Amino acid sequence: MSDRFSALLLRRADDALVLGHRLSEWTGQAPTLEEELALANLALDLIGQARTLYALAASRGTGEDEDALAYLRSDREYTNLLLLELPNGDFAVTIARLFLYAAFADPFWRAASASRDGDLAAIAAKAEKETAYHLRHSAEWLIRLGDGTSESHRRTQAALNRLWPYTGEMFEAEDIVLVAADICPEPAGLRDAWNATVEAVLAEATLSRPPDGWMQSGGRAGRHTEHLGHMLAVMQSVARAFPKSQW
Amino acid sequence: MSDRFSALLLRRADDALVLGHRLSEWTGQAPTLEEELALANLALDLIGQARTLYALAASRGTGEDEDALAYLRSDREYTNLLLLELPNGDFAVTIARLFLYAAFADPFWRAASASRDGDLAAIAAKAEKETAYHLRHSAEWLIRLGDGTSESHRRTQAALNRLWPYTGEMFEAEDIVLVAADICPEPAGLRDAWNATVEAVLAEATLSRPPDGWMQSGGRAGRHTEHLGHMLAVMQSVARAFPKSQW
Repeated sequence: MSDRFSALLLRRADDALVLGHRLSEWTGQAPTLEEELALANLALDLIGQARTLYALAASRGTGEDEDALAYLRSDREYTNLLLLELPNGDFAVTIARLFLYAAFADPFWRAASASRDGDLAAIAAKAEKETAYHLRHSAEWLIRLGDGTSESHRRTQAALNRLWPYTGEMFEAEDIVLVAADICPEPAGLRDAWNATVEAVLAEATLSRPPDGWMQSGGRAGRHTEHLGHMLAVMQSVARAFPKSQW
Repeated sequence: MSDRFSALLLRRADDALVLGHRLSEWTGQAPTLEEELALANLALDLIGQARTLYALAASRGTGEDEDALAYLRSDREYTNLLLLELPNGDFAVTIARLFLYAAFADPFWRAASASRDGDLAAIAAKAEKETAYHLRHSAEWLIRLGDGTSESHRRTQAALNRLWPYTGEMFEAEDIVLVAADICPEPAGLRDAWNATVEAVLAEATLSRPPDGWMQSGGRAGRHTEHLGHMLAVMQSVARAFPKSQW
């Protein structure tokens, strides 16, 4: 049981770390100073979530410490959603991804904040406050871009179309032998909430919901795109060169 | 008078922006997740300081808005200290630079928080709280590295030796026709406070103070190293491609 619970925590930690890193790549490159600060703050929220989740996973039986979990695994050992490792692309792709994920993560953390596991419930309560803001921020941008100029509309619709095949993975049944849903929420149960959020915001943004066709999968099982490997190579270079900063 | 005041504000804004960007480059590359969060938080403080200073400079007569000031000037128009644009180097260089600058910035903001200019006083009061933490964080690391292993001591002393010739520029008399010191503090008056901080921390860190030899200069007049140009090329690429995000 504790190994399975740790594995579920790792999925959430990896999601947060990988998306946090993608958002941090915008530092120095956002369209305005205000948005640069906003994206950097979101990145910080996510990397902070990852840190506490890794620490909890470590304390519940992975046998590795939080830094080893964050920095020293191979890409095959990461269990993040493929959606989150894709390159940032343009600003529309970044915003669309953040929105599609936050519309899932926010109800996930809300449900997890009622977990029977007190440690997870505490992490979840803080994460829910953060993701609620991420959802609001990204939804506002999506509406501004979708309902903006013809060029911003075109780019944002293209971003949605490109990302859509990666959204199904969020709702896959956990393939790990079951952890009770009152300990860790089952993602499949969040699909209705996600659909409702997405449909409302897309309508206001005058964007079309892409058709639900074949969905990408594999991230939860460690089968990743080449993009994750590139990201990890950068992320891990210093940690591997200076383990524990013991020069 | 207002143009001179704006020019002084720009110096502080450019210092904060450039150092903030250097620190943000550590995201994904710090030795531990905890330090990654810490450096990202410091970067966020500095970029936030820059933003409010650019906004104040803009409102006092530069005639450009805050984003134009941050993103659309050429390197010859940036007035940051050369110290802050140097590449990060290893972790010891990053920490030593942060310390050497914070030991100046903290008393600068403390003095500025008593400015007769109410807007600057308010920004300075917030910045002082932040730089007090930057100073404490970097001093603790400097002591840990200097008084650590022989390798960490060697690297940290090398970092100090490398950065030292860039510290004199902090205390240069402002070459802009004088703004009253009770509006904006004169850097030369902060040298004693800086010396006292630096000597106390270096002693505890078992590091030697490098000799005060020939000092680099030029940043305040827009004469920069090639490193600033590279940083700006990355920083400005998106802002120039998508001015005001109007695709």
